[in-house]
Amino acid sequence: MINFQIQPDQYQHWKVTYDGPIATIGMDVNAEGGLVSGYELKLNSYDLGVDIELYDILQRIRFEHPQIRSVIITSLKEKVFCSGANIRMLAQSSHGHKVNFCKFTNETRNSIEDASQHSGLTFFCAINGTAAGGGYELALATDRIIMVDDGSAAVSLPEVPLLAVLPGTGGLTRLVDKRQVRRDHSDYFCTREEGIGGRRSVEWRLVDEVVPASKFSETVRQQALQAAEKSHPPSEAKGIPLTPLNRQIAENQIQYSTIEVELDRPNAAALITIKGPEGEPPENAESVALQGSDFWPLAFCRELDDLILHLRANETEIGTFVFKSAGDSSLVAAYDDVLLAHQSHWLIKEITLYLKRTFKRLDVSSRSLIALIEPGSCFAGTLLEIVLNADRSFMLEGEYEGIDLPPPTVRLSGMNFGPMPMVNGLTRLQSRFLDNPDEIHKLENMTGKELLAQEAEALRLVTFIPDDIDWDDEIRLALEERAGFSPDALTGMEANLRFGGPETMESKIFARLTAWQNWIFQRPNAVGEKGALRRFGTGKRGNYDKQRV
Amino acid sequence: MINFQIQPDQYQHWKVTYDGPIATIGMDVNAEGGLVSGYELKLNSYDLGVDIELYDILQRIRFEHPQIRSVIITSLKEKVFCSGANIRMLAQSSHGHKVNFCKFTNETRNSIEDASQHSGLTFFCAINGTAAGGGYELALATDRIIMVDDGSAAVSLPEVPLLAVLPGTGGLTRLVDKRQVRRDHSDYFCTREEGIGGRRSVEWRLVDEVVPASKFSETVRQQALQAAEKSHPPSEAKGIPLTPLNRQIAENQIQYSTIEVELDRPNAAALITIKGPEGEPPENAESVALQGSDFWPLAFCRELDDLILHLRANETEIGTFVFKSAGDSSLVAAYDDVLLAHQSHWLIKEITLYLKRTFKRLDVSSRSLIALIEPGSCFAGTLLEIVLNADRSFMLEGEYEGIDLPPPTVRLSGMNFGPMPMVNGLTRLQSRFLDNPDEIHKLENMTGKELLAQEAEALRLVTFIPDDIDWDDEIRLALEERAGFSPDALTGMEANLRFGGPETMESKIFARLTAWQNWIFQRPNAVGEKGALRRFGTGKRGNYDKQRV
Repeated sequence: MINFQIQPDQYQHWKVTYDGPIATIGMDVNAEGGLVSGYELKLNSYDLGVDIELYDILQRIRFEHPQIRSVIITSLKEKVFCSGANIRMLAQSSHGHKVNFCKFTNETRNSIEDASQHSGLTFFCAINGTAAGGGYELALATDRIIMVDDGSAAVSLPEVPLLAVLPGTGGLTRLVDKRQVRRDHSDYFCTREEGIGGRRSVEWRLVDEVVPASKFSETVRQQALQAAEKSHPPSEAKGIPLTPLNRQIAENQIQYSTIEVELDRPNAAALITIKGPEGEPPENAESVALQGSDFWPLAFCRELDDLILHLRANETEIGTFVFKSAGDSSLVAAYDDVLLAHQSHWLIKEITLYLKRTFKRLDVSSRSLIALIEPGSCFAGTLLEIVLNADRSFMLEGEYEGIDLPPPTVRLSGMNFGPMPMVNGLTRLQSRFLDNPDEIHKLENMTGKELLAQEAEALRLVTFIPDDIDWDDEIRLALEERAGFSPDALTGMEANLRFGGPETMESKIFARLTAWQNWIFQRPNAVGEKGALRRFGTGKRGNYDKQRV
Repeated sequence: MINFQIQPDQYQHWKVTYDGPIATIGMDVNAEGGLVSGYELKLNSYDLGVDIELYDILQRIRFEHPQIRSVIITSLKEKVFCSGANIRMLAQSSHGHKVNFCKFTNETRNSIEDASQHSGLTFFCAINGTAAGGGYELALATDRIIMVDDGSAAVSLPEVPLLAVLPGTGGLTRLVDKRQVRRDHSDYFCTREEGIGGRRSVEWRLVDEVVPASKFSETVRQQALQAAEKSHPPSEAKGIPLTPLNRQIAENQIQYSTIEVELDRPNAAALITIKGPEGEPPENAESVALQGSDFWPLAFCRELDDLILHLRANETEIGTFVFKSAGDSSLVAAYDDVLLAHQSHWLIKEITLYLKRTFKRLDVSSRSLIALIEPGSCFAGTLLEIVLNADRSFMLEGEYEGIDLPPPTVRLSGMNFGPMPMVNGLTRLQSRFLDNPDEIHKLENMTGKELLAQEAEALRLVTFIPDDIDWDDEIRLALEERAGFSPDALTGMEANLRFGGPETMESKIFARLTAWQNWIFQRPNAVGEKGALRRFGTGKRGNYDKQRV
């Protein structure tokens, strides 16, 4: 089982130092510390385990160390910054693992940019040696790339010439869209195994600056300090500890404090019940901070995040996530009110951003998403996003006969109208009203109202509203049907239907780039016996089928 | 050899009638008329041959029948409109053929929308029976979908449930982006084998209108007439005949009137030399019309179009297109001046739009594009687009020793600043100046100037400018190197680097959708022995690996 939970004292691959407003993340991969056996993580190459640590570091910087304003990513090894994803690891991995690995590394790099954009952090990449493939892609996710000018340091994306695959962690997209490197320069760069260093790397915008070795560390440090001064630190902010999750995993059950999961293996589905908060929320941001990791929205978010990662990596045959909720929707709405009232408080902001990222993770998880709205549920505001997120939602019209609960309702809150956009930059409601964006204003007026099935359907909030005579059959059929389809076809279909409207760099990475990479990860030219990935290290080049497709 | 050239008297699958401003394209596929043996084109299912005819029809409507303002696409069979791409054909086709087939059908559907948007044509799809898969996707490319309401007609995208592949001809994208069908409705629709007819098909925006059988034909006709009246017909416009191309194909050589090609098989490259016009252009639009298909820009465009299609389909191991030109750049510029001066003339407009579509076809052709600018070349304006289009361009700095020709130049014209955008909606120059769009104004001031290598490089128009000492080696190495890479990796890399900046429905179709479809077209769940595509018609469903990737 791959475990995404880790504590700082367990890190094997990174050393983090905190110095005033600057955090330095030093990469020092333990070659023997691979997640599974069969490869050595030489030259700061990485596998999923290395990236799980990086993700944990980034989360803790945001929650535990809010005084940090600048982050320096560098290498603690000599002459090498990072040589990217470990190739033997890729060569021995299943297709599914490769794809899932790239997805997680992409999400982690996107979270760096999220912190730059929304949390006032400036990320510096201090390239003190060669930065190849995923190593340079990590750099591309930062705000400023500074490289040592020592005649040997260089950046490169050698995947195409060397391995017959693509740089799969956003590199191609960030080259042309973020750094706006000309396409012809990009083309040349991406076919040059040895990469580009020195003056040309600056002229072509591949890095921002090259600095002689003697001044390198001090230059990076000074720039990090300057950026920190310009940022607005959450003065006196005191971090909250991200305490270990309370999680129990049994064969067909997973328990968290706010989420219960049953695996319905015949239907290849996870029945995920979110338990709403049990009491009134704390009154102000300070008391939220005192609750820390126990504050319900944060506890829920951390648990959902872990659940998605766990299911994606360890339960690959579970193709459908079925979401239910249980609780008091007015309490969920009350928590939303706290999030909305104190948006400018650093911790509230971080929690909201984390909810946003976690829901995005759900969107790109290659799983069918179904929401069931039954009596006793609490799909309000933040939790209603799960319904809006679903490929299909079902809401019971009326009561269940024989069960003494009122008909279910859904409820809008301010959290549905802006704070948690999808990867396409639109809110889930905007994505639903592409044809008539003005209708959203009408919905804003319904905020706080408990909406019954017919009203929710008329407002486009839910897909189907069977009554209790049809309910069981309709849900059963939907789940059975989904389980009968080709998982690949569903993944492709959902990836195309979920994100109407505009595109962003993030949506380009998860759609265009990922899809092409997935294709190539199946091609004999890369992964066949004579493919470049399999032959790497043997001294032989790939023997390619020359057909262009 | 697949031949993309056809004359109307050779059509087997479509009947076209012209009646005043209305053309009716009736689909009546000859089941025995498949392009290769092994399948029957029953129930108006299609293969590449059927689509080659459709493409020809659409081109002739625009050039030969400019009086046409409305086009009705319908079926001449009973109870069935079109059942999409022939499944046995797909099942027996190579991966490469499937992908290439989908690319061409996509381009043809995009050309329908191009005619709607730019040529004042209104396309009606009169669905007089079932429209399944590619049949409905053809409808989605039109402006208005009218379906008969007879209790059995329906639209469907049954690919996912039935075949474990995606609707590969833009269907998913057009559902959510063009028709703005809600994603949950789209999800349901795309998993429902039998599709949706009647009232719900209108409520969900899948079609625009359903009409009882008794009024069906007349309703369509009336609406087509009304649309034609609202359009501004090119009064008195008289079409020009698209005469058969003058083409000679030998083993390693292809000759057209304006293009000469040599196949360099060791380097997997086609050396394509474009011959510029030989005399002054006609003075006005009327004399252009008199020249008709012989007018140099149109002749060149038709030949380039055919060449791309030919190489893509029949020379699949030719991975690199190397473009050269020979001629007088001031003559090329003079032809551009004619195109620019008479933009509003229907024929000039159609020629310009056709050039745009053909260059787009080049962009999405999964071939590396290299331009060589040598003494005697004529890369001006329209032809300069080929240089701007290239993944890499080389321009000789100075003269060739021992050859009595002046150093090569390139030259901008108004054709580089707007009329021929790429699939991302930007011109090729805009795509080159994403970081600094204002620089383009400086370039506008250089219009008409003959630019030498150093100047062209400084203006970002070319990639490298070797002198005659380095030229041969540099070109040789670039070609050899390209030939040594994995064709798949190059295709994926180019698809990600070529289109920085914004996205359009077209770019989404060629990137996101196509890439996912390509992936799925390789998955055992679709194309393996137990896959759905292979088992279709056997009564057995696909036996799927349940892993979600």
